[in-house]
Amino acid sequence: MAGSEIERVIQLLARLPGLGPRSARRAALHLLKKREALLLPLADALATMGRDVKACSVCGNLDSQSPCAICADPKRDAGQICVVETVADLWALERSGVFKGRYHVLGGSLSALDGRGPADLNLDGLLARASDAREIILATNATVEGQTTAHYITDRLRAAAPAGLTVSRLAHGVPVGGELDYLDDGTLGAALKARRLL
Amino acid sequence: MAGSEIERVIQLLARLPGLGPRSARRAALHLLKKREALLLPLADALATMGRDVKACSVCGNLDSQSPCAICADPKRDAGQICVVETVADLWALERSGVFKGRYHVLGGSLSALDGRGPADLNLDGLLARASDAREIILATNATVEGQTTAHYITDRLRAAAPAGLTVSRLAHGVPVGGELDYLDDGTLGAALKARRLL
Repeated sequence: MAGSEIERVIQLLARLPGLGPRSARRAALHLLKKREALLLPLADALATMGRDVKACSVCGNLDSQSPCAICADPKRDAGQICVVETVADLWALERSGVFKGRYHVLGGSLSALDGRGPADLNLDGLLARASDAREIILATNATVEGQTTAHYITDRLRAAAPAGLTVSRLAHGVPVGGELDYLDDGTLGAALKARRLL
Repeated sequence: MAGSEIERVIQLLARLPGLGPRSARRAALHLLKKREALLLPLADALATMGRDVKACSVCGNLDSQSPCAICADPKRDAGQICVVETVADLWALERSGVFKGRYHVLGGSLSALDGRGPADLNLDGLLARASDAREIILATNATVEGQTTAHYITDRLRAAAPAGLTVSRLAHGVPVGGELDYLDDGTLGAALKARRLL
């Protein structure tokens, strides 16, 4: 139906998460309408990203430099390492703007179902970095897989790391802006147990 | 937060219809994960599309050749011209596989609200083509703007085109697979008025 060049763009766009065939068609037409302002810049930006962006050799973050901008920043505390499952989680924490240490990206979580074991995660790098760190903050997801991964890493760190190392995890509790009525029992129970004195 | 190359891709992706900042971030990470299979082919396909695809000089369809594949196809009936608002509408009709004539893309509809008048539509081309055609099928949208546009074109055709020209429009009625209970009154009324003998 559409010319084969357009058809090819539609097929590739439809493989992006969040886009189906229908929205891929709309996107392709929108791109053709905004050729100078959007289509050509996007083609360029994708090619540049594909050529230049790589995983940081230290933490696993994605950046055009390795070590990445965070690992190379002398103002970020090298003694605090926040362990996340994915680069998306790293971005989410960076957006909060609270954390001033460095990161370690595991590249996933342990999952018996999906056949991901310790060898599939970027763990050796973390154990090596832990010997120079004061604190490891485990920020894996609050899912069964994420918590299993956190337990496993804690065990490995206790066995391998120096005695002075602190290992912590993110607090569980009521999300800011969240209504109690809509929260699951597990979260409410955790929030109650971890209550703080006023 | 993300490297500037990734940030740029995210900003451009977020301007596509159907993608917001969040899904643009997910899409960018997905692209980086599938660098060889998706990112580089997409960058390539977009650049090719931006370079080669143009509007057909006859009908306004988008294709890498002009006249487009449909206008250049001798098997498609040149005596039947289906008038659509946009290329997306043309694609939709092509997917139905029913129409074997040619198209004319107006590039929009008349809209006093949006300040689009007859001069903004590809009308002169249509009037020129009408003198060689047997039938003009108006397939503008069933919206107020689309129907206004259809009326306006009918008037212009009656004034300018040869006496033998048939002008028709798509049937209104119950969508195939549609449930009466969910249809608006206008559609039901139109379906009732246009009922067919069995």
